[in-house]
Parts: sequence; C-alpha cells; structure tokens
Amino acid sequence: MKEEMIVTPWEVKGEIDYNKLIEEFGIKAIDEALLNRIKKHTKDLHYMLRRKIFFAHRDMNWILDEYEKGNKFFLYTGRGPSGKTHLGHLIPWLFTKWLQDKFGAKLYFQITDDEKFLFKEKLSLEDVKNYAYDNILDIIALGFDPKKTFIFSDTEYAKTLYKEAIRVAKHVTYSTTKAVFGFKNDSNIGQIFFTSMQAVPAFLESLKAGKNVPCLIPLAVDQDPHFRIARDVMPKLGYYKPAVIHSKFFPGLSTVQKMSSSQPFDTIFTTDTPDEIETKVMRAFTGQQATKELQKRLGGNPDICAICQYYYFLFEPDDKKVEEIFEKEKKGKILAGEHKKDLAERVVKFLEEHHKKREKARDMVEKFILRD
Amino acid sequence: MKEEMIVTPWEVKGEIDYNKLIEEFGIKAIDEALLNRIKKHTKDLHYMLRRKIFFAHRDMNWILDEYEKGNKFFLYTGRGPSGKTHLGHLIPWLFTKWLQDKFGAKLYFQITDDEKFLFKEKLSLEDVKNYAYDNILDIIALGFDPKKTFIFSDTEYAKTLYKEAIRVAKHVTYSTTKAVFGFKNDSNIGQIFFTSMQAVPAFLESLKAGKNVPCLIPLAVDQDPHFRIARDVMPKLGYYKPAVIHSKFFPGLSTVQKMSSSQPFDTIFTTDTPDEIETKVMRAFTGQQATKELQKRLGGNPDICAICQYYYFLFEPDDKKVEEIFEKEKKGKILAGEHKKDLAERVVKFLEEHHKKREKARDMVEKFILRD
Repeated sequence: MKEEMIVTPWEVKGEIDYNKLIEEFGIKAIDEALLNRIKKHTKDLHYMLRRKIFFAHRDMNWILDEYEKGNKFFLYTGRGPSGKTHLGHLIPWLFTKWLQDKFGAKLYFQITDDEKFLFKEKLSLEDVKNYAYDNILDIIALGFDPKKTFIFSDTEYAKTLYKEAIRVAKHVTYSTTKAVFGFKNDSNIGQIFFTSMQAVPAFLESLKAGKNVPCLIPLAVDQDPHFRIARDVMPKLGYYKPAVIHSKFFPGLSTVQKMSSSQPFDTIFTTDTPDEIETKVMRAFTGQQATKELQKRLGGNPDICAICQYYYFLFEPDDKKVEEIFEKEKKGKILAGEHKKDLAERVVKFLEEHHKKREKARDMVEKFILRD
Repeated sequence: MKEEMIVTPWEVKGEIDYNKLIEEFGIKAIDEALLNRIKKHTKDLHYMLRRKIFFAHRDMNWILDEYEKGNKFFLYTGRGPSGKTHLGHLIPWLFTKWLQDKFGAKLYFQITDDEKFLFKEKLSLEDVKNYAYDNILDIIALGFDPKKTFIFSDTEYAKTLYKEAIRVAKHVTYSTTKAVFGFKNDSNIGQIFFTSMQAVPAFLESLKAGKNVPCLIPLAVDQDPHFRIARDVMPKLGYYKPAVIHSKFFPGLSTVQKMSSSQPFDTIFTTDTPDEIETKVMRAFTGQQATKELQKRLGGNPDICAICQYYYFLFEPDDKKVEEIFEKEKKGKILAGEHKKDLAERVVKFLEEHHKKREKARDMVEKFILRD
C-alpha cells in the first residue's frame, strides 16, 4: 500500500504525485507557452525549467506582463535554519540566482529562525541562530549580487517585520490556518502566528520603494500554503498578490523521495568532506538488479535510481548527457559501482569549489545583511 | 435580571462582583496582615490600599520575602493605546508611581500598540501610534522617575520583544488561550499570539541584569488572565513567576461600572477642558431621590453615586473626608447640584495641574523611551 501523500511546510511524506499537488494546491503547470515567453527575456532556459524541476506557478504570466510594461519584479525566497545546508536546499537558491542575473532583480532572502525554533521542539533559539549563520555562508557562496541581495533573519529584523506581520495577521483567522496548515488545539501560538511573518517579505520592496512592486517567489512546493494565505491578504493591504514558481523536491540518496537531513546517509551536506561524500554516494540506492549479470541483461530504472536523479537535478546541466546517463542505466550498460564513483567525483569537485567560496563568504556577510 | 459578569482583557460587562472574581481568577484578597507587612516598608499606606481599591494579589508575600532578603523587585505595568487617556487609567499608574517611590523600583511601562491594533477592528496602526504618544504624555506627567522608568511600545521595541515572545509562545497552546481568553475560530492569529508579547516585560529586567529579578505587576484586574499564562510559562524559561496586585475598575459617570471611553459622557479625558469637565460632571448619575424634599428626607446611596465614587477612587485621599462626604450623601445633607459642583471644581483643578505637567512632558519623552 502506498503511503498517503502529505505536503505541508513542515512535513513531506509519502510518494509525491506532482499532478495531484497541482490540483490540490490550485497551482498551474508550467507549459511550453510559458517557457517560450520566459525564454524571450532570458535567451536561454535554465535546465531546471527545461526539465520541469520548476514545474508549477502562480501568476507567472502576470509577472511577465508587468515586466514587459517596464514594471520590474523583485525576488523573495527563504531558508528555515533547522540544520546544516544540504544539496537539496541549493535547488531553489541556484534557480533564484539565475533569475536575479537574467532579470536584474533585487532579492529578499528571509531566514526564518523564529519558525524553526517554534516548530522543532528540541531546537533552542541559539541553535537556530547558529544554523542561520552557517546557512547564510552557503547562500552567499552561490554568488548572489551583494548590491541587490538582502538577507535577514526574522528575530534580528523583527523591528521592521513584526509591525507589518500584525497588519497581515489582522486579516487571518485561526480557522484559515487550521484549514491550510492543519493546526490543532495543541499547536503553539507562535506556530499559529508565524505565517504572518513569512508573508511580509512579499511586500518589503514595495514598503521600501513607497510604491507597489511585483514580487516573484521561487520556492519548493511545500512552502506554497503560506502564499495561498499571503495572496489572499496582500490586496487588502494595498499590495499586488505575489507570483510564485514552484520546484519539485530534491531526491534523497537512499530512496528517491524528498531529501531529509534527519536521515544522515540520505543527505549530502555542503560541508561534507570528500570521504563523507564518497561513503554516502557509495551507499546510495540505485534500484539495479540483484547481480551484475541480471543488470547487464535487464537494465535498471533511472526514475528510482538516486544516482541518475542526482545528475538530473543538480550535477549535469547538459540535457543530452543526462539522456545518455539515463540510457546507460536503462540498458544495463553501467554498473552501480562505476555509476556511483563517477557521481561521487562530480559531487566532490562541486563541493570543493563551494567550500572555497563559502570560506570567502565569511568576510562578506555584513554586505548582505539587512538591518532595521 | 442582572447582566452576566464578563471580565476579560478586552471586555468588562455586567455588575462586577469582586469576591466572585477573586474566586474565578484564583487570586487572593488583600488582608490586614498583608497591609501591615507592606506598611512596615512604606511607613504609610496609599489610600488605594487602605480602601482596597487594590483589592487582590498573587504572591505579594513572596515579593516582600525577597525584598526583605535584599532581592529588590522591579515593576511592570502597561497601557493599551486605543484612545485618549481617561481618569480611570490613572488609578494603576498613580499607584505604580507610589510603589516606585516607596521601594525605589525600576519600572517597565509597556504600550501595547500591537494589541489595540489587533483587537479594535477600526483602528489603524497609525491611529494607535498617535494614541500611544498621547498616552505617554499622561504617563510622564504623573512624575515617574526618568532614571528608573522605561517606556516602550511593542512595535517599536519589537527587535527585543519578538524573540523573547516566541520563547514564551513555544510553551502556550491554542487550547490554553481558548480557555483563558475565549478565542474562537474567527479570532485573528495576531490576537492569539499577543499574550506572548504581554508576558515579556515580566522578565525584561532579568534579561538586562543577567540574573533573575522578582517582578511586581500592578494592574486593573481584567488584565490578570495574561499573567495566569505568564506565571505558568516563566519558570520553564528559568524566571520567577511575576507577582501581581489587582485594582478594581474606576466607575463611570453615568452608571457606577467600569468607565468606558466608548460612551463619551461616561468618561473624563485627561485633556478635557474645564467646560467639558463641568458638563460631564453635571450630567453624572447620583442616584438621588426624585425631588429635593425626598432626598433631604430619605438620603441617597453613596455606593451607586458616581460623585461619591469619584471622591473615593481619585479625588479625596483623606479617609475622614471621604467618610464625611458619604455621610452627607446618605443623610440627604447635600443635594446633587452642589455635590457635582464641588467635584467639578476638584477635577478642573486637578486636570489644570495635569495639563501643565503634560505639556512639559513633551520635552521629556526621549528620556523615558527604551530602544533596542
């Protein structure tokens, strides 16, 4: 029996059916017409768009209408600092950086330290603050434009955020949060309030500019429920509804579901050493046949092979090469050992570069941090 | 049929039975033993204690135990800026000033602009901010020690308050706020969160001092429910439970119930002109007999006479003189017109003095405001 699919900002469980999610969330699939329209402005299409890793949206056509009228949008994304950064977190961030580069957009990057403190029973505020700093290094390492990127944590930027959050909160009933997030009587009152804090950055640029500025939010699809609420409230405060573009979940190494840092071997952290990376990749699930002979004869299934999925999501931007990798797997032309070794090399190389940029980021943090 | 008594921080209705409140809230009546113990330190007793206008408490004996051990307490009280200051607001503030003087105590004075914005549908954040400034002038005019008094509004001091409020919120479930405040599904999520913000000043001095400091909160009894929650949570955060001392409600002019600024003739604002004051006092309810002759023969009832109650609560600190006034009323020796004229003179005189101090307060605001 299949495990029931659950997708909320705090829990992703079961086998993910993205078509069903599109229907349940009331979002739109990204189609060829939209991709062509984006391409008109960006010249090329990011592989995450070509492959529909970013697969759905809200109001992308409106964002482009406004852009074409000369009304530029700003970007907003975020990170809940509940642990070290893993590769899955990089998906929306890398795509956000591409959008920033292509559209010259400002970016507000929210670190929801309050959220993770409120939702993770065992985490202290000090823990999440430490993770926040750690995560910010990874964000900066990706090369965002320091002149156009504003990173802030909810508790540190509360003087600005709280008074805007209560404007949102005044329009959101307990009923709504119960229906959207599934809160119960034993939910704590900080959890219930929190979505108000997550709404604010969607109008921060409008606040600062003193005029209404369109907002585009790239995110993993589990975060969408917050913006269902925000889109409802923001027009009541005089702001545009924010547009949203949704990514699929980065697969785990041990099963091809959302990567989770609570299963240590399922996850590669950006700070892992080459040895740790190799160990984890070598233990990955490929779904290959029981013996070499069977694999050579029957082949494997790239859709459930974590190695193939890693190439697809993050380590091979060339579509042709991904196709070749998938073909080899399907036809039994590559065995698990070699397959893993190749990927491990790529990951090690990628993260070695990342580590260097991450160390340099330490001196750049102050350039990015937004203060009241 | 009597109207049912309702006492919450946002609604006071019906005839108030203070004995019943003591029972329902689980607070303790102030008795002679406690008064004597306080008097040991203060030499004299404030008339609000002698008359049991401050009538109940939580843990006052513990506060005195600590004080006697050399562990001084700090004071915390507040104001919800939903309108102009009226005479009723002065009751706990004047008493708080007396406590500050007698015990040399620091005072944290919270202006809950967030609360009033969240609970008053028609008030904008800009409205409550204007009222906040207006109210702060009245507070300062009462003569608090600028070196020991720290006034702050929740939205302006949010950088400090929010991150402490979420520590409280993590320990408070929706169930609890439902039971304590009567929240419903259509309560907004800012209202539900708010009690966390009201808890924080009860440990602000401990935060700043870096050690546990006892806190005493003088308040009107309708605010007690917040501190039932705070007293439950604070030991979990490593702080003492705050002690509380509760006042009765200042009577309205038209019926002897809690004064309410939503009925303009029921209320004297601190900014009223002599003409306005006279008009309001002359319209007050005295409960005297239908004719002068009947009044002279049968007398009146000071307990339902707004004029008598005004002397009792605010305009005659001398107990003997209050007794004389009550006697005259009881025995029909004073008629409504004269009774009112005397009081109006006192109120005008009091507020003329207050207006002067209030104008001077404009230049002193910055000395009192606490900033992050």
